[in-house]
Amino acid sequence: MKTIDLNCDMGEAFGRYNLGMDGDIIRHITSANIACGWHAGDPLVMDRTVKLAVKNNVGVGAHPGFPDLLGFGRRNMDCTPQEIRQYTIYQIGALQAFCIANNTRLRHVKPHGALYLTAVDRPEVARAVAEAVANVDPGLLFVTLAGKKGEIMSRAGQEMGLTVVCEAFPDRAYTPEGTLQSRKEPGAVIEDPVEVTERALRMVLEECVTAVDGSSIPLKVDTLCVHGDTSTAVTLARDIRQAMEAEGVTLASMAENGRSKADL
Amino acid sequence: MKTIDLNCDMGEAFGRYNLGMDGDIIRHITSANIACGWHAGDPLVMDRTVKLAVKNNVGVGAHPGFPDLLGFGRRNMDCTPQEIRQYTIYQIGALQAFCIANNTRLRHVKPHGALYLTAVDRPEVARAVAEAVANVDPGLLFVTLAGKKGEIMSRAGQEMGLTVVCEAFPDRAYTPEGTLQSRKEPGAVIEDPVEVTERALRMVLEECVTAVDGSSIPLKVDTLCVHGDTSTAVTLARDIRQAMEAEGVTLASMAENGRSKADL
Amino acid sequence: MKTIDLNCDMGEAFGRYNLGMDGDIIRHITSANIACGWHAGDPLVMDRTVKLAVKNNVGVGAHPGFPDLLGFGRRNMDCTPQEIRQYTIYQIGALQAFCIANNTRLRHVKPHGALYLTAVDRPEVARAVAEAVANVDPGLLFVTLAGKKGEIMSRAGQEMGLTVVCEAFPDRAYTPEGTLQSRKEPGAVIEDPVEVTERALRMVLEECVTAVDGSSIPLKVDTLCVHGDTSTAVTLARDIRQAMEAEGVTLASMAENGRSKADL
Amino acid sequence: MKTIDLNCDMGEAFGRYNLGMDGDIIRHITSANIACGWHAGDPLVMDRTVKLAVKNNVGVGAHPGFPDLLGFGRRNMDCTPQEIRQYTIYQIGALQAFCIANNTRLRHVKPHGALYLTAVDRPEVARAVAEAVANVDPGLLFVTLAGKKGEIMSRAGQEMGLTVVCEAFPDRAYTPEGTLQSRKEPGAVIEDPVEVTERALRMVLEECVTAVDGSSIPLKVDTLCVHGDTSTAVTLARDIRQAMEAEGVTLASMAENGRSKADL
Repeated sequence: MKTIDLNCDMGEAFGRYNLGMDGDIIRHITSANIACGWHAGDPLVMDRTVKLAVKNNVGVGAHPGFPDLLGFGRRNMDCTPQEIRQYTIYQIGALQAFCIANNTRLRHVKPHGALYLTAVDRPEVARAVAEAVANVDPGLLFVTLAGKKGEIMSRAGQEMGLTVVCEAFPDRAYTPEGTLQSRKEPGAVIEDPVEVTERALRMVLEECVTAVDGSSIPLKVDTLCVHGDTSTAVTLARDIRQAMEAEGVTLASMAENGRSKADL
Repeated sequence: MKTIDLNCDMGEAFGRYNLGMDGDIIRHITSANIACGWHAGDPLVMDRTVKLAVKNNVGVGAHPGFPDLLGFGRRNMDCTPQEIRQYTIYQIGALQAFCIANNTRLRHVKPHGALYLTAVDRPEVARAVAEAVANVDPGLLFVTLAGKKGEIMSRAGQEMGLTVVCEAFPDRAYTPEGTLQSRKEPGAVIEDPVEVTERALRMVLEECVTAVDGSSIPLKVDTLCVHGDTSTAVTLARDIRQAMEAEGVTLASMAENGRSKADL
Repeated sequence: MKTIDLNCDMGEAFGRYNLGMDGDIIRHITSANIACGWHAGDPLVMDRTVKLAVKNNVGVGAHPGFPDLLGFGRRNMDCTPQEIRQYTIYQIGALQAFCIANNTRLRHVKPHGALYLTAVDRPEVARAVAEAVANVDPGLLFVTLAGKKGEIMSRAGQEMGLTVVCEAFPDRAYTPEGTLQSRKEPGAVIEDPVEVTERALRMVLEECVTAVDGSSIPLKVDTLCVHGDTSTAVTLARDIRQAMEAEGVTLASMAENGRSKADL
Repeated sequence: MKTIDLNCDMGEAFGRYNLGMDGDIIRHITSANIACGWHAGDPLVMDRTVKLAVKNNVGVGAHPGFPDLLGFGRRNMDCTPQEIRQYTIYQIGALQAFCIANNTRLRHVKPHGALYLTAVDRPEVARAVAEAVANVDPGLLFVTLAGKKGEIMSRAGQEMGLTVVCEAFPDRAYTPEGTLQSRKEPGAVIEDPVEVTERALRMVLEECVTAVDGSSIPLKVDTLCVHGDTSTAVTLARDIRQAMEAEGVTLASMAENGRSKADL
C-alpha cells in the first residue's frame, strides 16, 4: 500500500502582515514547513502555527531561510557555508523551542527559497545545511528535491547520517533530465487543477512524472509540495488529498514515513 | 564553606562589529550570559561564545532582550506579556541549539537591559519571562536581582516552578531600601577597584551590603555580575576572583550551585 | 466657502507583504501619509506610492515611525529626543528623495502610531519631531491633533516656525474635554458609516464635534483622517467625500490649504 | 599643477557599536563616503559624521550598500536592478537630509562593498545605481574604479549625464590588464607604507601604476581611497597627504575637482 505526505510552507505572516491561508490549508496537509523569523514569520506567528499544526495532527518542520525579510528569502546571498550552518542552527533552535513549549516534536527541516535552491546546486551549502540539522538533532528528516536535481542535497544529508525525504512538485513542469523546468520558461507552472491532480497521482502510484517532451521520468517521491496562499491553492490541496484517498493511498506525515524508512 | 558564581554578559558582538573582551574575561568568571541575536549577538558570535564557554568550563546562559539592535536592548518597548513570552522562547531556543551543537547544556536565563528592568518592575512581564523559561526547560535557572528589588521576578520564577538565582552588583550603590541607586544619581557606579572588591567580599561572606547612607542591608547573593567591556573591567573581575579564593570562597557556576539548591 | 483635506496612511506594504487598499482609497483622498520603511514601507513601495499619489493629484507627506517593523510602529520605545529627531530626519529625507525622483514635492509630515501618540503627550518629543521637520524643510506642513489634545504638538510646530495642520477623526469618539476617547473604552470607534459621515460634516461645517456626553466641543479642523485598509473603509472615504461635495465643501490637499494659511 | 582627492569610508558605527577612527582620519582626507544605515551607520552616526566632515571642510558623499547589516554589505545579494535603484535612492535621500539639516551639500555617491563590486561587473546594476544618483541630483559626482575595470560604471554614469570620478587604491596590487588583483591572490594588499605612498605619488604625478608583472599601466585618477579603521591606516593617510603636499600636489575634495571638470 502506498503512503504519501503532503507538505506546505506555513507561518509566513510577520507582525501586522498576514500571508497565506494557513487555517484552511492545514486541514488538507500532513506536514507543515514553518518559517523561523528570518525571511518570514515571527515568534507569535511561530507559536500560533505550531499550535495549529498540533491541533490538526500535522507534522512540524523548520523552514529556515536567508536573513532577508525584505526579499522574503528569495534572493541568493553570498554567504559562506559557515554562515549558512550557523544561521540554520539558529532558526531550527528557535522553532524547536516553540515545539517544546507546545508539547510536540520538531520532525523535519526544509530550507526556504534561495537557500533551498542554493543548497540544491552547491555541495558545500547542502553540506552546511545538513550539518546544522544533524548537529541539532540527527533524528530530524532532511527534505530535498526528488530526482536527479536533488542528488547533491541527498548525498549531503546521507553523509551526515540524516534520513532524506524526497519532494516533488505536481504543479511544476519537469525536464527530460528530471529537473524542474525554469520558471522563466513558458509552461513551467501547471495551472489546470485536474492536470495537477493527475500528475500528483502518477507521482505516487507510478513513481514517475511526464516531462515536457512527453517522456516518462522515474521519480521516487516521499512528499508532495502544495501551496496555500490562494483559495485556489487550498482547493487544489483538497482535490489532491481526496484523489489520493480515492485511490487508496494513505496520507501520513513524512515523520511517520521517515521513521519507518529509518527502521528498515 | 561559601560558594559564589561570577557572571558576565558575553557574545555581544554583531557581524563586523566587535564588543567586549570575551576572551579575557572568560578566564575569571563561572557563568556567561550570552546574547541571542536580538539586541546583540548573531549566530556566528553565539556559536563562538558557546565554544569559548565550554572550553573555559563556564556555565552557559541565555541573555534575551528586546528586538532593538539599534538601541542595544536598552530602551523599553511597550510589548505585551504575550509578545515578551514568545520573544523569550525564541531567543532561548536559538541559543539552546548552539549548546546542543556544541555538546553542552543551557543552564540559566537572565534577561538583558530594558527587558530585565521591566521584568523587575512589572509582575506581568516577570511572569511572561518566567513562563517562557519554564516552557522551554523547567530545569533552567532564573536569574533575578538579589534583595527587595528582585521580589517581583523571584515570585514569578517560583510560581513557575523555577529555581531562582539572586544576583548582586558589587560596583553599584544600594539604597537603604536595598534597591540599586539610580544611575542618574551621583555615585551610582563605584569605580574604585579596591572598594568594589571589598563590597563583593562582604556580599558573599557577610551576606550584606553597605547602603549609601552607611547602613548595612542584608542581601542573599548567589551570583555577582561583573563587566567585561574594558581592560579595567577584566582586571577587576580577576581581582574579585582572587580575593574570593584568598578568603576560601569556592567559585562555581550557578548551575552547580543551583542544582545543589534544587536538591535540598 | 469651506475647504477640507482628507488624509490617509498609505504605502504600508513591505516586501512580499501587502497591506491596505491604496489603489482604491487614493481616488477619494487629497493627502497621503506615506510610510518611510521603518515601521512599514520599503523603497519599492515608497516609489510606487509616490507615483500613485502624483497620478491621482494627491499631496505627498512623510509618515515616520519608530524602528519597529515587528510591532508596526505601534509600541512606544523609550527613545531620547535626540534619537527621535535623527530618526525623523532620516525618514523624511528618504521619502523626499522619491518625491524628487518622481518630480513632485514633499508637502507634509505626520508621525505614525506610537511616535504620534508620544509626540502628542511629551513636549520634548513633539519638539524633536518638529525640529527634524524644520531642519529638513521649513516649508513642510506639520500635522497634529485638532483640539486640546494637540496643543503640545501645535506649540512645538509653531516654535519651530512650521505651519501646523490640525487633524480630526470622524470615526473616533471624543471626550467632553475634546480629546480622543481611549480605544480601551467601549464606543471609542464609531462604526456606523452614516454617523461617521455626519460627524465629518459637522466637524467641517460647524467646526465642532459631539462628545460622548452629548455636549458640543469646538474643533478647528484642517484635515480629516480616513482609513483605507478594508473595503468598508474605502466606501466610507467615498461617502465622506461625496457628502462634502454635496454640501459645497471644496476638497483640497492640506498643501494647498496650508500654503494659503501661510500666506495670510 | 596636479590636484588629488583623498577619500575614505566613514560613519560605519551602528548603535552601541563603534568602528573606524573617523575623528583621526578626517584630518587627512578631502572626501568622506558616509554609510547610510543599511550595511552600516545609523541616523545618529550619520548626523555626527556629517558634522565632523563639515567641521573639517571635507566633502560629504553617500555610501549606499545592500540591506545586510549582518554581513556589513560585503555579500552580494541577487537584487533586481529595480530594487537596487530604489535602495540607492532611499539611502542617498536619507543622507541628503542630514546634509541639509547641517547646512551642507551632498557631493558624491560611491557604492559600498558588494554593491560596488556588482556595479563594476554588471551593466544593469551600474545603470541602476547611476540612474538613482541622477534621479535624486544630477549634480552629484559618481565614483567608479579608475582604469579598465571601471569602464562599465563609467559608461553608466556618463549615459545618465553624471560627472564620473575615478578612484584608485594605492595599497592594492594591479594586474597587467589594469584591474585589481583578487584578494585571494598573495600580495593583493600592499602593506609597506613607504611603497604605498610611492604608488600613490606615481598614480597622481605620472598617471600610472606598476602592475604585478612590473609593467607600467596608465591610470587616470581623480581620487585615492585610503582606509581609516586602524591607527596604522591613519598614519598612512597622513603620510600620503604629506608626500603629496611635498610634491606640490594640491589636495582638494572631488567636489571641487569635479566641478571644474564639469565646467570644461
